[in-house]
Amino acid sequence: MKLYYAPDTCSLAVWISLEWLGANYEVEKANLGSEEYKKINPLGSVPALETDGGKIKTELGAIITFLAEKYPEMNLGPDDSIEDRFLFNQLILLISSDLHPSFGPIFAPKRYTLDTDEESLDKIRKAAYPRIDSILSYIDTLLGDRDHIYKDKKTVLDAYLFILSGWAEFTPKSWTEYPNIKRFREKLLKDEKVKYVLENQK
Amino acid sequence: MKLYYAPDTCSLAVWISLEWLGANYEVEKANLGSEEYKKINPLGSVPALETDGGKIKTELGAIITFLAEKYPEMNLGPDDSIEDRFLFNQLILLISSDLHPSFGPIFAPKRYTLDTDEESLDKIRKAAYPRIDSILSYIDTLLGDRDHIYKDKKTVLDAYLFILSGWAEFTPKSWTEYPNIKRFREKLLKDEKVKYVLENQK
Repeated sequence: MKLYYAPDTCSLAVWISLEWLGANYEVEKANLGSEEYKKINPLGSVPALETDGGKIKTELGAIITFLAEKYPEMNLGPDDSIEDRFLFNQLILLISSDLHPSFGPIFAPKRYTLDTDEESLDKIRKAAYPRIDSILSYIDTLLGDRDHIYKDKKTVLDAYLFILSGWAEFTPKSWTEYPNIKRFREKLLKDEKVKYVLENQK
Repeated sequence: MKLYYAPDTCSLAVWISLEWLGANYEVEKANLGSEEYKKINPLGSVPALETDGGKIKTELGAIITFLAEKYPEMNLGPDDSIEDRFLFNQLILLISSDLHPSFGPIFAPKRYTLDTDEESLDKIRKAAYPRIDSILSYIDTLLGDRDHIYKDKKTVLDAYLFILSGWAEFTPKSWTEYPNIKRFREKLLKDEKVKYVLENQK
């Protein structure tokens, strides 16, 4: 398998998952915005995962669910019941359709207005802060005193939440101000596989 | 089961799914923004589905996947292989984390800037149009000449895409300008269950 990634993006969550799963893989830094990369993912975003026979897989939440299922012996996916699969999917969607898009205006404010002056763009960024805070506060409550976002179990979702919650540092309220997220992230920052990916992504 | 919904929102996709599945359910119009409803869904959004024992389920994509699995005899979920589940999840995420958030600035421009004047808000709306168009064009290509977004098979994803692609009417480029989406929607607009939901949602 080959992972197309970009530094400091959500795609690192797939890389960490590949490490945790002990998968046989390689990585390639995507040239975001290039016509060449659009042939790989027409939406132009990372991650994209090339699997057997050159097939390209996109959508982070679907990719990490696929990987967890591909390596069942590592047990990094949901438990085996309809309620467990529901909870796992619910958390993926909370992160990918609520939390993730809320950062869009911070990273690319120009995509959210026709105005181009710095003052207008700054108002776009600032308007995003309360929304991000409300979702991270909700996730902090969900985490509670557990070390994992899915039940008491280490799964690929921990990698996803680890990367996205870290982006709070681009808002006035750092992730260290959410007590449960702080504990969750500080533990993962000591994980050997997480350290490997963070050091090798640049 | 009880579905909390609001007129003209994505929650109608769950309602259509419940109808297609022949489920035993009731609906309740949510008082969005009320403290009462926040006790049901802390994020304040619809849909929310109350299942056995008063448990509340949120996140549309996870809810319809759960429902399809709960009524396997109706066969409205993915086929049974790792690649099939991947494709199903990928499409859910394409709709819920790419397409769905792209409409946010159209429906609630005030959430995307600190400016409050109509001219600024209009620039927020207009900046969203090309992004929506690019995702709908991509989905139009994915659909091709099929009548279903997942393979050649009717699934709950059709309900989801039906509702969201209809929102193109709030942009300068109506859904009728995407040839495959047009054919897909026009067929579903004649579906008895879809008609029932659209007529009873107000």
